[in-house]
Amino acid sequence: MRPPPKSLARARLAVTPVLAAASATLAPELRRIVEYHWGWCDAAGRPASGGGGKRLRPTLAVLSAEAVGEPADRALAGAAGVELVHDFTLLHDDVMDQDRERRGRPTAWAVFGVGPALCAGDALVLLAQRVLLRDASPAHVAALAALGEAAETVIAGQALDLAYEGRVDLGEADWVRMAGQKTAALLGCAASIGAILARGPEAAVASLREFGSALGLAFQAVDDWLGIWGRPERTGKPVASDLRQRKGSLPIVAALAQPGAAAGALRDFLRAREAPDEAAIARALDALEACGAEAATRAVAEREYARAERCLASAPLAPSARDELLELASFVVDRES
Amino acid sequence: MRPPPKSLARARLAVTPVLAAASATLAPELRRIVEYHWGWCDAAGRPASGGGGKRLRPTLAVLSAEAVGEPADRALAGAAGVELVHDFTLLHDDVMDQDRERRGRPTAWAVFGVGPALCAGDALVLLAQRVLLRDASPAHVAALAALGEAAETVIAGQALDLAYEGRVDLGEADWVRMAGQKTAALLGCAASIGAILARGPEAAVASLREFGSALGLAFQAVDDWLGIWGRPERTGKPVASDLRQRKGSLPIVAALAQPGAAAGALRDFLRAREAPDEAAIARALDALEACGAEAATRAVAEREYARAERCLASAPLAPSARDELLELASFVVDRES
Repeated sequence: MRPPPKSLARARLAVTPVLAAASATLAPELRRIVEYHWGWCDAAGRPASGGGGKRLRPTLAVLSAEAVGEPADRALAGAAGVELVHDFTLLHDDVMDQDRERRGRPTAWAVFGVGPALCAGDALVLLAQRVLLRDASPAHVAALAALGEAAETVIAGQALDLAYEGRVDLGEADWVRMAGQKTAALLGCAASIGAILARGPEAAVASLREFGSALGLAFQAVDDWLGIWGRPERTGKPVASDLRQRKGSLPIVAALAQPGAAAGALRDFLRAREAPDEAAIARALDALEACGAEAATRAVAEREYARAERCLASAPLAPSARDELLELASFVVDRES
Repeated sequence: MRPPPKSLARARLAVTPVLAAASATLAPELRRIVEYHWGWCDAAGRPASGGGGKRLRPTLAVLSAEAVGEPADRALAGAAGVELVHDFTLLHDDVMDQDRERRGRPTAWAVFGVGPALCAGDALVLLAQRVLLRDASPAHVAALAALGEAAETVIAGQALDLAYEGRVDLGEADWVRMAGQKTAALLGCAASIGAILARGPEAAVASLREFGSALGLAFQAVDDWLGIWGRPERTGKPVASDLRQRKGSLPIVAALAQPGAAAGALRDFLRAREAPDEAAIARALDALEACGAEAATRAVAEREYARAERCLASAPLAPSARDELLELASFVVDRES
């Protein structure tokens, strides 16, 4: 396994105090849920470590300020803002999807109840707004508008994802539309919000956003690949996890679009009402293989990764930050968890 | 029954096009849920009328601009913003409280499912932000900051309300703290956001916010009174509705603080696990009467209404708008539904 890029640790170190100061302003009932979600404490409120995410979005935000030649601290309110919005969507999505586990720990609603977890998510989207409005300069207002627009798009993507449930007539274009909203919009915002805050040139902001958006689709394609073919000891999830939950992930929709019996078998698998047994999972995996679903999924990841690379190549950016963005992108696409 | 103040109809007429233009920008899946919630369409999306709220908050917003001598249209983004935030909290609260009915119709989650209703709520809090940021002037940014702060307070109040569930050791001070956050904060914002947008003097803004906040407590005390002693043909709810749901409303917490057997009987009623039968409801109503709970509840409503009146009396406000604010406050406190 390759070591994680240094930019992740550097951004985490810079954004953690901003997140800590922000969560300290929450009502105690809500702060505890948020800090549990971040892995900073256990369910009883005792200090803990681990279990938080990679802080990919804050890292993109920090690098985007550096990419337009400004120091990382110009990006910090945006770095915190994108992470808070991301956590808001995770807290709510886990309720909607009834997911009881995240990053190897019980989800917030499973520990604290549905109502408190929903309130914690609500609090975070408003906290993101407050963190950005602490400075009411035009750059901060523009960054907040961009973040709000991205968050609206994420919500629309989640609603679309819910509307897709149970459908067996979807194709790759439907997946691109949904993942473009649910995942890529916020990564596009993360990869440009630091440049907005640092008042970088419009062309650089646009290229960085496009880079983040392409990276977001690549990220989601890899996520969907891992959800079926990831190694359980790395992902912390059961074998073929997304198949067990009958998620309409990219491998599935890519396979459904194929002619022939294998796609038909997959449709039957998705339509069945009872929980699938191991034999049904094995048959579904065979059907995916017969449809070339794994290769199709990797192809989307590679296509979007190449697009992300191109966005950076053509933009007027500081070389060292550009290299770190590329290193981060490559890490995201090659990750095993 | 007294006729509703003209200001309600006037504000509704002014704010409806702003709300309609805003909801038209939502994804179709979400727009339908929001417009159903507003009573603009039925569950199938067919146009309907009725079932929306009183638009009390937009009316306060409009009057607050007029109170500092500016026309209503200066307030419209704020009027829409407070209503969108209010609807965001209603959509989420109905999920958290598992309430299946609101304003005589099935709640959004009961019709469209939990996930879509939560997404619709999420979309509205972000839509409120977007409506206010459409103009990035300092007045609009200040109004957004005030709205965000109020929304954060509402969420903290809802979390507190959830934390109170099942407790039998609460008193009036706990209720004031919770209702102050959950209800009064947003009414305080509504009653001042128009003045903020119209760049009214700081002293007027502060008095109007204080007025709205006091009115909010009076409003909630009346709501809690109606929840137990309201006439079903007016409220659209069963007799003693809040008792059936064992809500920790003001009459209950006021009664629990009394010494003696009646408060003890009420505690037993609240602690029981099975759904209360009609005999248990009748005994709980007797216990409330023995504790003087109805008078205590009316006393809070009158005390806060008087405080609201005083806030307006001492502030430098346009007389006609002040009169309309007082008329509205008196309508709110005397209402039967």
